[in-house]
Amino acid sequence: MPQLDVAPVAPVATSWLARYHAVRAQSQALCAPLLPEDTVVQPMLDVSPPKWHLAHTTWFWETFLLKEYAPGYQLFHPDYAFLFNSYYNSLGSRVNRADRGTLSRPPLADVLAYRAHVDDALSTLLDERADELPAAFFELLELGLQHEQQHQELLATDIKYILSTSPLAPEYLPATQLPAPAVHAAPAAWLPVPGGIYRVGFQEEGFCFDNELAAHEVLVAPFELQNRLVTNAEYLAFIEAGGYRDFRYWMGEGWDLAQAQGWEAPLYWVQKDGQWHRFTHHGLQPVDGAAPVTHVSFYEADAYANWAGARLPTEAEWETAARHFGATPARGTWLESSRFDPQPLPADADPAQCHQLLGDCWEWTYSAYHAYPGYVRAAGALGEYNGKFMVNQLVLRGGSCATPESHIRVSYRNFFHADKRWQFTGIRLAR
Amino acid sequence: MPQLDVAPVAPVATSWLARYHAVRAQSQALCAPLLPEDTVVQPMLDVSPPKWHLAHTTWFWETFLLKEYAPGYQLFHPDYAFLFNSYYNSLGSRVNRADRGTLSRPPLADVLAYRAHVDDALSTLLDERADELPAAFFELLELGLQHEQQHQELLATDIKYILSTSPLAPEYLPATQLPAPAVHAAPAAWLPVPGGIYRVGFQEEGFCFDNELAAHEVLVAPFELQNRLVTNAEYLAFIEAGGYRDFRYWMGEGWDLAQAQGWEAPLYWVQKDGQWHRFTHHGLQPVDGAAPVTHVSFYEADAYANWAGARLPTEAEWETAARHFGATPARGTWLESSRFDPQPLPADADPAQCHQLLGDCWEWTYSAYHAYPGYVRAAGALGEYNGKFMVNQLVLRGGSCATPESHIRVSYRNFFHADKRWQFTGIRLAR
Amino acid sequence: MPQLDVAPVAPVATSWLARYHAVRAQSQALCAPLLPEDTVVQPMLDVSPPKWHLAHTTWFWETFLLKEYAPGYQLFHPDYAFLFNSYYNSLGSRVNRADRGTLSRPPLADVLAYRAHVDDALSTLLDERADELPAAFFELLELGLQHEQQHQELLATDIKYILSTSPLAPEYLPATQLPAPAVHAAPAAWLPVPGGIYRVGFQEEGFCFDNELAAHEVLVAPFELQNRLVTNAEYLAFIEAGGYRDFRYWMGEGWDLAQAQGWEAPLYWVQKDGQWHRFTHHGLQPVDGAAPVTHVSFYEADAYANWAGARLPTEAEWETAARHFGATPARGTWLESSRFDPQPLPADADPAQCHQLLGDCWEWTYSAYHAYPGYVRAAGALGEYNGKFMVNQLVLRGGSCATPESHIRVSYRNFFHADKRWQFTGIRLAR
Amino acid sequence: MPQLDVAPVAPVATSWLARYHAVRAQSQALCAPLLPEDTVVQPMLDVSPPKWHLAHTTWFWETFLLKEYAPGYQLFHPDYAFLFNSYYNSLGSRVNRADRGTLSRPPLADVLAYRAHVDDALSTLLDERADELPAAFFELLELGLQHEQQHQELLATDIKYILSTSPLAPEYLPATQLPAPAVHAAPAAWLPVPGGIYRVGFQEEGFCFDNELAAHEVLVAPFELQNRLVTNAEYLAFIEAGGYRDFRYWMGEGWDLAQAQGWEAPLYWVQKDGQWHRFTHHGLQPVDGAAPVTHVSFYEADAYANWAGARLPTEAEWETAARHFGATPARGTWLESSRFDPQPLPADADPAQCHQLLGDCWEWTYSAYHAYPGYVRAAGALGEYNGKFMVNQLVLRGGSCATPESHIRVSYRNFFHADKRWQFTGIRLAR
Repeated sequence: MPQLDVAPVAPVATSWLARYHAVRAQSQALCAPLLPEDTVVQPMLDVSPPKWHLAHTTWFWETFLLKEYAPGYQLFHPDYAFLFNSYYNSLGSRVNRADRGTLSRPPLADVLAYRAHVDDALSTLLDERADELPAAFFELLELGLQHEQQHQELLATDIKYILSTSPLAPEYLPATQLPAPAVHAAPAAWLPVPGGIYRVGFQEEGFCFDNELAAHEVLVAPFELQNRLVTNAEYLAFIEAGGYRDFRYWMGEGWDLAQAQGWEAPLYWVQKDGQWHRFTHHGLQPVDGAAPVTHVSFYEADAYANWAGARLPTEAEWETAARHFGATPARGTWLESSRFDPQPLPADADPAQCHQLLGDCWEWTYSAYHAYPGYVRAAGALGEYNGKFMVNQLVLRGGSCATPESHIRVSYRNFFHADKRWQFTGIRLAR
Repeated sequence: MPQLDVAPVAPVATSWLARYHAVRAQSQALCAPLLPEDTVVQPMLDVSPPKWHLAHTTWFWETFLLKEYAPGYQLFHPDYAFLFNSYYNSLGSRVNRADRGTLSRPPLADVLAYRAHVDDALSTLLDERADELPAAFFELLELGLQHEQQHQELLATDIKYILSTSPLAPEYLPATQLPAPAVHAAPAAWLPVPGGIYRVGFQEEGFCFDNELAAHEVLVAPFELQNRLVTNAEYLAFIEAGGYRDFRYWMGEGWDLAQAQGWEAPLYWVQKDGQWHRFTHHGLQPVDGAAPVTHVSFYEADAYANWAGARLPTEAEWETAARHFGATPARGTWLESSRFDPQPLPADADPAQCHQLLGDCWEWTYSAYHAYPGYVRAAGALGEYNGKFMVNQLVLRGGSCATPESHIRVSYRNFFHADKRWQFTGIRLAR
Repeated sequence: MPQLDVAPVAPVATSWLARYHAVRAQSQALCAPLLPEDTVVQPMLDVSPPKWHLAHTTWFWETFLLKEYAPGYQLFHPDYAFLFNSYYNSLGSRVNRADRGTLSRPPLADVLAYRAHVDDALSTLLDERADELPAAFFELLELGLQHEQQHQELLATDIKYILSTSPLAPEYLPATQLPAPAVHAAPAAWLPVPGGIYRVGFQEEGFCFDNELAAHEVLVAPFELQNRLVTNAEYLAFIEAGGYRDFRYWMGEGWDLAQAQGWEAPLYWVQKDGQWHRFTHHGLQPVDGAAPVTHVSFYEADAYANWAGARLPTEAEWETAARHFGATPARGTWLESSRFDPQPLPADADPAQCHQLLGDCWEWTYSAYHAYPGYVRAAGALGEYNGKFMVNQLVLRGGSCATPESHIRVSYRNFFHADKRWQFTGIRLAR
Repeated sequence: MPQLDVAPVAPVATSWLARYHAVRAQSQALCAPLLPEDTVVQPMLDVSPPKWHLAHTTWFWETFLLKEYAPGYQLFHPDYAFLFNSYYNSLGSRVNRADRGTLSRPPLADVLAYRAHVDDALSTLLDERADELPAAFFELLELGLQHEQQHQELLATDIKYILSTSPLAPEYLPATQLPAPAVHAAPAAWLPVPGGIYRVGFQEEGFCFDNELAAHEVLVAPFELQNRLVTNAEYLAFIEAGGYRDFRYWMGEGWDLAQAQGWEAPLYWVQKDGQWHRFTHHGLQPVDGAAPVTHVSFYEADAYANWAGARLPTEAEWETAARHFGATPARGTWLESSRFDPQPLPADADPAQCHQLLGDCWEWTYSAYHAYPGYVRAAGALGEYNGKFMVNQLVLRGGSCATPESHIRVSYRNFFHADKRWQFTGIRLAR
């Protein structure tokens, strides 16, 4: 189990139950616009079929909570543990990740029945036995909620990728409700952050993942951060200046990959009638120059920064700045907005403030995803939750338009390999 | 367009329409037991998603008949030609074959609407304008029916493969209706065929594919053929004698492949509770020793024959024997039986007759699939129907339990690469 | 051991010894122009390092003759059996074929010492004990000589490939001795061959490989054959007519391969200063229009024939024609000429004769390499010599400019996969 | 050009010339025990053929110094720039890295002539024109010497890998001169390092690479470091405790790789007669329990540390400790010793001192190889020297038994991917 340094929030049974139902309902709501066919395919290795997400999150509840704490609990199906384990070596063999998209069975209807079965059992448990359950149960309950929220973000991004592979460019949601594109973005400004010894990592009350611990001090030199995310218009200038054809801006491995795969723009950008469009949850849409650029790899973010004469912030700089500027999720774009795209900063936004730190886009940092000082991998299966990924990836910060708003913190550490583009990733410049 | 040496059968509009509707209905009937999820996946390259089969056969009618002969015909959707072309280079670019299983859209419902749209248009055309249509139209109509029947066989075998990938071993049809396994097969007997100059290739009336032409004479030396297919019990003796572990019986490429993939038995065989079972259209079933062995590659068929001190017949031998013994489809097992498995020869079958030549299993021959003397590739897109495959594959003869009964002839030439196992392929010995 | 239907030629010890030494010396002479560095690399899987060829042929003598028949023979090195076994499963594990080019040790000098050691032992055996040796020994001796001649052809073609990979285009032999290119080739003429029942396969005295047996009758329909090989000038017309860009001429698998690998001309052709050149054993040379085209795959040969309105002969047609026209090796180009390239037919050649059937280029046939009727794989390791390759390849006939002249027969069957181009392969048209 | 913050050492022409000749001679001396065959192969992608190293280092002098500063310099060969460029995109196309081992030409003799040609020209230049040459020339001269020393280390490790692929286990140097294995290693002790703000990065006089700049302050928490490298005996305990079979100690990607490749011990370890041996520059030798373990990947180093209840130091900790303990190269094992293996710490070594920090083994740190604050990539081709590799790799510190002694510094940053094992990499524990 991840390290929790404080008791979970609000350990009152009714409140837990309400949170549980709200989170579970949100996962299914995300799949409501899909057809059964959409829920089964896996067009690339990083993407999982939506019905797999719906089942895997359910398997988590069944495996870590119901089997342990619900007396007499009956497994919904004996083979589901094999089918829906993601990566836990402790829990035995599992379906090869590359084969998730070939399994038409169990169908979506059975997965929904599985969800109902588990929801019933957990509701009953919370209703009838909350008083008898130990603190460890509630820590797992909290973790299960956080885990399911993480899969909600993956659902949103995987669904986008799945629909994008069809030449029909289907809409997940009707485009009719979209606002008109902004004409101009607010101009970018550089904001100074003073140097010093800062404390980073989780240091508040409530829940955090084990990878945010231990909080510790870091020495940060003075630096400046841009007050908003890089926009599509700015990124387009990089494209048009030949940024994708000049190796000098690129990490070597990034350049080789970009050449091999023929990258010429962010993921989902296509030329149509001589104009750049983007595939979105609302079908194919013209690129909005004022909106933050997204679906860029670390390689592209880093190359852009080099071209722009700047750099990406480190993880410590980012968190220091977020704390310094008092970042809050209040004005960010989150999963709950159903926008599924980062939004332009209003032209009248205060240039002295630092915007979009939380929400809209995950911001690539130039920090490897390594363990914090004092980090200890937990015993048992949950020890595989974070620790075994702590090499070869980069940290991203701040959450995105596909993150549930209640899921984020300034100390939250997300991580992806440098080549990944299917998440809502964006660019914040430092210098 | 393939070479037709006679007029198509029964060029009367009402009869054509009835045949058209019967064939089209059969394709959809095969998919009726499926869920939408089953119709979208492609667990290996040789397999196509069922909804792709349903759409591709429809595209064939639209492209080759309606666009050419139906005045004012409106395409159902402008992108479907790209989506559902299989391999015709003449007709422009197409979806990469490996990506067929990632396209959740268009969904099954749209494909069924596509079928209805095309069926309406073709029915109207046949109803209202049959008299005006040229002979070339009816030749294409005949070809379209044959083409759709070919895809029915693929539907049956691809569906089996798709369902087999799930650890749940789902049933396509309920197993409750299956007969009890036979206890003993009729003993095998060798039947002599006299040598001489024989005429092979299509030489009857009615339809044939261009690859069955030109009929020509071959010199066949005297040989003997076994009077039935090799059974599971016989093949099991080969397995138990170490046939999969002794390279001396194997072609070199077959041996390397079998080692690399860990073959120990035909496709779909699994050990369960110490006994061999087979995945079937009726779920997992014990191996019936009396039934013909099926789902073997050429490599396995050839290794078995070597082990048994015999050999596979050549294509010319097979056809000569089939004509010599007066093979008819009457007692074979066909798609229409819904058995989806080759059936045991009754214990009291006449040992002096040659059984199971037509139906039950495609029989591997030791003949490469090459053009017959005088073969000429047709002009235009239909010239790609057969000719471009005439190297690196082997001929199979006789049809299988997944072939529509009306689709077969003694001159019919099927062909697959030596490693393929997902069709209903079997073994007939010669010496 | 291969089936020999007659006693080997000239079973007199002195003559055997002379032949042995002549063949062994020829292998080393082929490597004389090489540097040690050239003898170790393997730039593609089909190519073996020259020092591997020199060692493997020696291993054959040691394994099949000396270990069996030379009393008290001492192995040169205990690890060489593992290092230099090519593909005999009967003889235990061996170096992975793809790794042959990474083994710098043993070096060339040690391989030459190995050759001397084995030559000494075999000379002594033949000198001192010829009278005691059984007929089986002399059959193996004959096979060893034929085997080493086969590797001489591979040495010549592998050396060419190895040198070709260097941008320096090094000469194997000085180009100064080359004759001036011919200006015109003799015009091609079609020669008729009457139909009938012919006997094919080995039916003479002396040695043959087991794959040439049993001789048997075939029914051949009347056909015409071109009286010479297709020339570079003729093939260039195909290139310039867009033959490499029009799928209609191509087998499907050939087309896909040609696209994937960017084929635009035969192997070794490069544009330089706006003119086609070919890499040869004499460095880079302008294409000689009058010389036979070579280094084409079956796919290219077949596509060319389709474009030219003709076809490739079958194996039976080729051998029937060779016997009909009384083909002899007398005027062909062979390894012994050190030309290492097929030569133009003199402009005054008799158009009523059929030229170049033996020597110059291996001629692709449109016949799969399958066992002849009555073929039986030998017992023991030599049963792997030919039989296990009898599927998925095509027969080539007639020998080439890299074949030792004494190695060829009209019944000789060579075989390669349809995509291979590094041998001296050429095109003969039939219709 | 890399950032140099001070003038190069000893800018006196005679001294430069002596250093130049000494470094150049050392490269060739390393190849003296090789045969020409050894200098051409590339058994894996990370390894380059020795003659490529000899040529590439020469190309560096020709390209960056002679072409720029030697009036009238004649290129040795016009194609060598293409052949021997390693990874500089600025300098045009180059041989694909995977193809280096297929080029037998130019042979070793030509490469040595190339070296002599360049050495002559550079000697003449230094002899005759040293006074006229600008400071930039001497900075490049220094860089060229450092660059060639880096390739000396690669030569030593690549030669080992090349010879290891032969089942003959050839000796690079005779084993007769090896000392007897030590019986016991000095016991390990933990040494404390106080926390504080430390300055890391190059801060001395003389040469450094641009990746060691800018020197900057870091905050280091108090920690302990082991006073010597982990030994073979200690690592063997990890193996015998099942360390390679228990995923809990491993990073996920490391575990998957170790399973896929069947790792059971460090690279070069083999069981022989029931005992662990190691392939070394002196052939196959029994594992010396007292010697430092080497040829381990980061994954193995990290798994070992987890198993041992410790961790790897960060880069900042390592450098801080090295400065704190006054590490000097005096007692380390270096290339010049011709030992080519890390040596045991004498049993009577002072346990209060920190040993083996410099020399013997590169020590894996748990720090990603990223740019230091203020790092700026240089303009031009030399800007590709370090900067483009600054992601996805890990820092190693301290030099090894294959590093020239004059090449090392406490601020020296080496870097490899986490899976690499062919360098002399070792393990130092922290906690």
